[in-house]
Amino acid sequence: MSEQFSSRLLEHCVEAFSQLPGVGRRTALRYVLSLLHRKKEDAMVLAQSISQLLEEVKYCSVCHNISDTEVCDLCADPQRDHSTICVVENIRGVMTIESTGIYRGLYHVLGGIISPIDGIGPDELEIDSLIERVQSGEVKEVIFALNPTMEGDTTIFYISRKLSNQDITMTTLARGVSVGDDLEYADEITLGRSIVNRVCLDAQKP
Amino acid sequence: MSEQFSSRLLEHCVEAFSQLPGVGRRTALRYVLSLLHRKKEDAMVLAQSISQLLEEVKYCSVCHNISDTEVCDLCADPQRDHSTICVVENIRGVMTIESTGIYRGLYHVLGGIISPIDGIGPDELEIDSLIERVQSGEVKEVIFALNPTMEGDTTIFYISRKLSNQDITMTTLARGVSVGDDLEYADEITLGRSIVNRVCLDAQKP
Repeated sequence: MSEQFSSRLLEHCVEAFSQLPGVGRRTALRYVLSLLHRKKEDAMVLAQSISQLLEEVKYCSVCHNISDTEVCDLCADPQRDHSTICVVENIRGVMTIESTGIYRGLYHVLGGIISPIDGIGPDELEIDSLIERVQSGEVKEVIFALNPTMEGDTTIFYISRKLSNQDITMTTLARGVSVGDDLEYADEITLGRSIVNRVCLDAQKP
Repeated sequence: MSEQFSSRLLEHCVEAFSQLPGVGRRTALRYVLSLLHRKKEDAMVLAQSISQLLEEVKYCSVCHNISDTEVCDLCADPQRDHSTICVVENIRGVMTIESTGIYRGLYHVLGGIISPIDGIGPDELEIDSLIERVQSGEVKEVIFALNPTMEGDTTIFYISRKLSNQDITMTTLARGVSVGDDLEYADEITLGRSIVNRVCLDAQKP
């Protein structure tokens, strides 16, 4: 776009918004104009909450999930199953799994997945601290809940090798046909896996 | 979504982002996570540019466009045609018309259009200052460049009534078939107007 901004301040703000993922300059301008249309105090809430989050954000010292306390609510909850750790890519993974209401164990947030293209190697991720948690002895099962992509599989392979000498069960999310989906539209690889890993009828719970 | 946030700071920030137009909580969370993934100084730029814009934003005292100076660059430019005023809804209108590179006159930013449903009446808009500009005598033509909607047409009707005793030409953007469009897909009202307002072949300039 060859659009010219009549104000340098406006341009800077549009520029900053367009750094967000999936936001182009047109959308960024729309966001900025909507801020300018509001009362100043209301619009300022966004700037304040961003800077407060960035200044004061803390991560749980155990699972590395975002937390307002030294140890997050999940890790501090005695009702949760401390012998099971679910390994996720980021805090969104925690929220996604929590939203199912099925899982009662703890989490471990890697902070990314191994992706050489993006320059992310194992050292950038919270893998050592995961191994330490497993070595502490309380853990019986590690569940890998990473995206079913090449990078996700690479990360699972790398960590599972590191943990292979530990006396734990390692599992990954079942891959198969989505509930409510039409078989005709499932991709061949997913469908193939769902045949290989078929489940006994009496093992299927709702 | 029944998603639970593990941090109050995070929740506040997601909440603030989801006030932006077209942004739901899922997109807001994506924005916040992308900020947390960056270096703190880089991420802080967004908060700083928002608060700086809100604190220091100025509007041109003549045309009400956003400006860093008391009178905006367009109004201060002696090269522009000061006898023509193009009336637009907001600063995006100025940018859109400027991007054509065709128009050489000045602008007047109304700050909205008359929309009783949204509680916006004529008094909320910069209509009186437009009338003052016209009464100053230098103006020969007022072009209404508002969206071709019911609200746009109402606003044009209201302002044109107020200006009817002035010795000026009032025009509105031509409505017709888009350049490069297929006639088959033009809506009936637009096509109808383009027949009524048909143009002599030798009056058509590229």
